Amino acid sequence: MLIIGERINCTRKPIARAVTNGDEAFIQQVALQQVRAGAAMLDVNGGIAGHEVEYLPWLVDVIQKVVDITLCLDSPDPEALGRALPLCRYRPMINSITDDPVRFSALAPLAQAYGARVIALCLSESGYPTTADDRIKIAASLIRRLTAAGIPPQDIYVDPAVFPVSTNTEYGNAVLDTIETVVKTYPDVHTICGLSNVSFGLPARMLLNQTFLVLAMGRGVDTVIADPCDSQLMANLAAAEMLLGRDEFCAAYLQAHQSGRLEPEKAVVSGQ
Amino acid sequence: MLIIGERINCTRKPIARAVTNGDEAFIQQVALQQVRAGAAMLDVNGGIAGHEVEYLPWLVDVIQKVVDITLCLDSPDPEALGRALPLCRYRPMINSITDDPVRFSALAPLAQAYGARVIALCLSESGYPTTADDRIKIAASLIRRLTAAGIPPQDIYVDPAVFPVSTNTEYGNAVLDTIETVVKTYPDVHTICGLSNVSFGLPARMLLNQTFLVLAMGRGVDTVIADPCDSQLMANLAAAEMLLGRDEFCAAYLQAHQSGRLEPEKAVVSGQ
Repeated sequence: MLIIGERINCTRKPIARAVTNGDEAFIQQVALQQVRAGAAMLDVNGGIAGHEVEYLPWLVDVIQKVVDITLCLDSPDPEALGRALPLCRYRPMINSITDDPVRFSALAPLAQAYGARVIALCLSESGYPTTADDRIKIAASLIRRLTAAGIPPQDIYVDPAVFPVSTNTEYGNAVLDTIETVVKTYPDVHTICGLSNVSFGLPARMLLNQTFLVLAMGRGVDTVIADPCDSQLMANLAAAEMLLGRDEFCAAYLQAHQSGRLEPEKAVVSGQ
Repeated sequence: MLIIGERINCTRKPIARAVTNGDEAFIQQVALQQVRAGAAMLDVNGGIAGHEVEYLPWLVDVIQKVVDITLCLDSPDPEALGRALPLCRYRPMINSITDDPVRFSALAPLAQAYGARVIALCLSESGYPTTADDRIKIAASLIRRLTAAGIPPQDIYVDPAVFPVSTNTEYGNAVLDTIETVVKTYPDVHTICGLSNVSFGLPARMLLNQTFLVLAMGRGVDTVIADPCDSQLMANLAAAEMLLGRDEFCAAYLQAHQSGRLEPEKAVVSGQ
């Protein structure tokens, strides 16, 4: 199970402020916190209207000064990606390609050129998916087109597109069923989801994200974009890995216990 | 989703002490706490060697003086059950019948005579089940024999038999796969599991029980025997119900939030 740290995202006010002020130290602190908390990659979103082309490469540079980690470049803008991708120390991930022909044809060549991993987000030009079937059809199309464009299946991470359950209580099941079907149908392809969308508009969002993580793991998801500084989330992850038979001799769980990571005092507020 | 409160169990020292001392007030307090915390039934285990025939009816009587709730009589002893069943105010549950011919033939007539619900525990006379297949075969046999004995499917609660993952890391998956298969194969039959066995022998047991609840709910379990006084467990339950589309308009979740039940300060120690 792999956690991509979600905190360096310009839709969050403290990050946007640090980026516009050129506050390297603040960004670096958020990067370090996430890596120390167990992130395996960091998501980097420099999405401030009109400035992404400038901010995304700046962020990559600033972050790589303090942490030695794979980055997940979070932008739909081919120009911003084109400038940030060559700066990445390790083979990066692109978040995300959709089945929209314009976005696909702009981003797939970049992924190919830089050997990047790709998040294949289940959205297309024909409106938002509602059911699992809608999502599975888009996933099939994306996998077909990405492999045809030279991206190997093991570099594809299908994201079912998590929408808030506050707007439709069936959205959770749609995502979970999509994960299960993709895992069974395409054993070489990864599945991923961004947890925090699920709880948008509801109280006790961290509880919902923590619980949705466990449900998604139960259906086979192998990667999530989430807040690794949420200690309850990380404890749930260690517990679920073991309960699902993915932690031989309970070794990682016992290690997490010994280092005090299983009894969260108080979850860190993620600032969302 | 239905929670059966697990705390009145003579394998727990404070309960055994209260039962042997005839301490009605202590037992009644534990009953009231569980009902106030959201238990829909109470498990009642009077299992002290040589005294169950006396203690089980005593417990039923003492509990029913303070709470008006369905009881789940937890005993393999036909004589103890035969004395306690007629005292129950509401149609009780028997915990549990197994596929062992001796136990089955002693308990099935009691269930039939009192119109009791029955926990069908996936154990047989031929040793412990290991895989999901082992469990599903026993479940099929139990459902066949119980319905033949006049117990309607909607009164049967299949318990896959939860063993500690500390002894075999595949035991969690075996239980989860059994739940899913029983739910799909026998739509009128319920599934149930006792959560706390899963964590036996491991640290941070409550975290494991809380996480296993969510995994089991994700596969369709509709009843659990657990500690309703564990506020994190109850918060997980409310979150999972909503994320799985079983809480129309998020009504129960929002209600739980408003009454302060979603942000557990500190989980109650269950004394195990």
